[in-house]
Amino acid sequence: MIYKTFEEVVGKVKDLDGRTRMAVAAAGDEHTLEAALHARKEGIVEPVLVGDKAVILDILAKLGETVPEEDIYDEPDLAKAAEKAVALVREGKAQFLLKGRLDTGVLLKAVVNKDHGLGKGGVMSHFTVFEVPSYHKLLAPVDGGMVTYPTLEQKKAIIENSVEALRAIGYDCPKVGVLACVEKLNPKMPETVEGDALKQMNQRGELAHCVVEGPISYDCAVSKEIAAFKGFESPCAGDCDILVAPNIHAGNVMGKMLAVTCGAKMAGFIVGAKCPIAMTSRGSTAEEKYNSIALAALAARGMEGL
Amino acid sequence: MIYKTFEEVVGKVKDLDGRTRMAVAAAGDEHTLEAALHARKEGIVEPVLVGDKAVILDILAKLGETVPEEDIYDEPDLAKAAEKAVALVREGKAQFLLKGRLDTGVLLKAVVNKDHGLGKGGVMSHFTVFEVPSYHKLLAPVDGGMVTYPTLEQKKAIIENSVEALRAIGYDCPKVGVLACVEKLNPKMPETVEGDALKQMNQRGELAHCVVEGPISYDCAVSKEIAAFKGFESPCAGDCDILVAPNIHAGNVMGKMLAVTCGAKMAGFIVGAKCPIAMTSRGSTAEEKYNSIALAALAARGMEGL
Repeated sequence: MIYKTFEEVVGKVKDLDGRTRMAVAAAGDEHTLEAALHARKEGIVEPVLVGDKAVILDILAKLGETVPEEDIYDEPDLAKAAEKAVALVREGKAQFLLKGRLDTGVLLKAVVNKDHGLGKGGVMSHFTVFEVPSYHKLLAPVDGGMVTYPTLEQKKAIIENSVEALRAIGYDCPKVGVLACVEKLNPKMPETVEGDALKQMNQRGELAHCVVEGPISYDCAVSKEIAAFKGFESPCAGDCDILVAPNIHAGNVMGKMLAVTCGAKMAGFIVGAKCPIAMTSRGSTAEEKYNSIALAALAARGMEGL
Repeated sequence: MIYKTFEEVVGKVKDLDGRTRMAVAAAGDEHTLEAALHARKEGIVEPVLVGDKAVILDILAKLGETVPEEDIYDEPDLAKAAEKAVALVREGKAQFLLKGRLDTGVLLKAVVNKDHGLGKGGVMSHFTVFEVPSYHKLLAPVDGGMVTYPTLEQKKAIIENSVEALRAIGYDCPKVGVLACVEKLNPKMPETVEGDALKQMNQRGELAHCVVEGPISYDCAVSKEIAAFKGFESPCAGDCDILVAPNIHAGNVMGKMLAVTCGAKMAGFIVGAKCPIAMTSRGSTAEEKYNSIALAALAARGMEGL
């Protein structure tokens, strides 16, 4: 299956048996609690709060909300709060993480901890999907936020992470386009060489559960008409789910252009760990925060079955 | 002054004294002649055709059009046709070039010829502007088509070329944003170091007739609201005319995303020579070809005054 809108994603989350439990690391933050409680109100998650209990209770009172005693863990220290939230997932008391008011680095340190973490030993990357008015399904440009200058191996890992995320929410075999400014392999352009190498890995079965095309230009990746005009034939032509950016700058510009200039809605989380790690930035809209939590909740439940 | 639409650009071209003469290199090509004659019909240019005269006359007959004898130069050889078209501009018999049915490389070879060309000894780059529905003026992401991995010096030249193009059509002091995934200088990200260096060059007066901001993220470059939220202050914040891409892949994706996904209209030409070099690809719409010729004509006339 595929999704065209986040409304469909939210609908799917609401159809799940029981609520998905979300461990909020460093929950003593108004905008984070607002997002978590809004998601609870909509019936898609059950938040478990880890942080400075006094601060949390103050904010809850201010918001006129309550959370059961047993779902609030008092841990004022940020690093320890991160470790506790991770432990809750390990113990099965929560199914995914929501980053609260702490640096991403502090949270990830607890996540990748060899003894008590949730890491898988591989690359962690940003998974961001967009509901684009002019495209026929959700589009995921990766990675625009974490891996700065991915090597071939890291690009392979970014694809694996992103494919796992889509499969976790219900996709069978995502279509991946490794972007470059041309469709032909050009030895002078490493991005095209890597695009071709990733396609070969996919055809050899080293990059599974997806169809990879590369190198491919953006227009051929999202427009069947343009691909046909250029005589570019591929199952991914005009039908890509995932677009692999040559580097973080290109990926970052893609995501921001979709959101700011193309009127696309965004949602996302960090992939590469045993569970999704949702993050809601202060600047994002309530809708964006809600969609990110819903997407992460659906992926968390789906990952259990992969 | 600034432009919001290509309609405004076309209007400006129509206000010019007399028509702008356009030398068409290798004009024996139906889609090129259609574009050139459409522009003539609209009253914005007077085409001078260089190419295989027999072929040209056949196509003209087929199109039911005529061109004065003295404005057709018989030169079947592509390289010689390119040289002749360039010579016409040097002799003042034409004011800019339109690429016909020949490889860009062949045309540029004649353009950069030290003895008989139109080169300025610097970098040649692609100048592409977009009429973006959601932006308050034309937006020019550069360079998405020629300079693959620009060095700092080449980025400086790309900015100079693009600024000259905008000044030629009437802009006083274009605002330039050197894009990266962040707004802060990060020694581990050469793009941010170069963005800062270009800003310094601009402030020292080594990069004149424009305001350069860098490094700057795409959202801060085109959205005043987001820049304000991030506390990013700059005269370029949310008001950039030119966006300098980190490399050709990012620039290429930007242009294609604007055209294919954001519903933007495109026009462009090659800059860095003594006159604009317009190109109309077979795949582009009649409107795009027309706008590119109009933009190049306006720039050609404006360059004379710079």
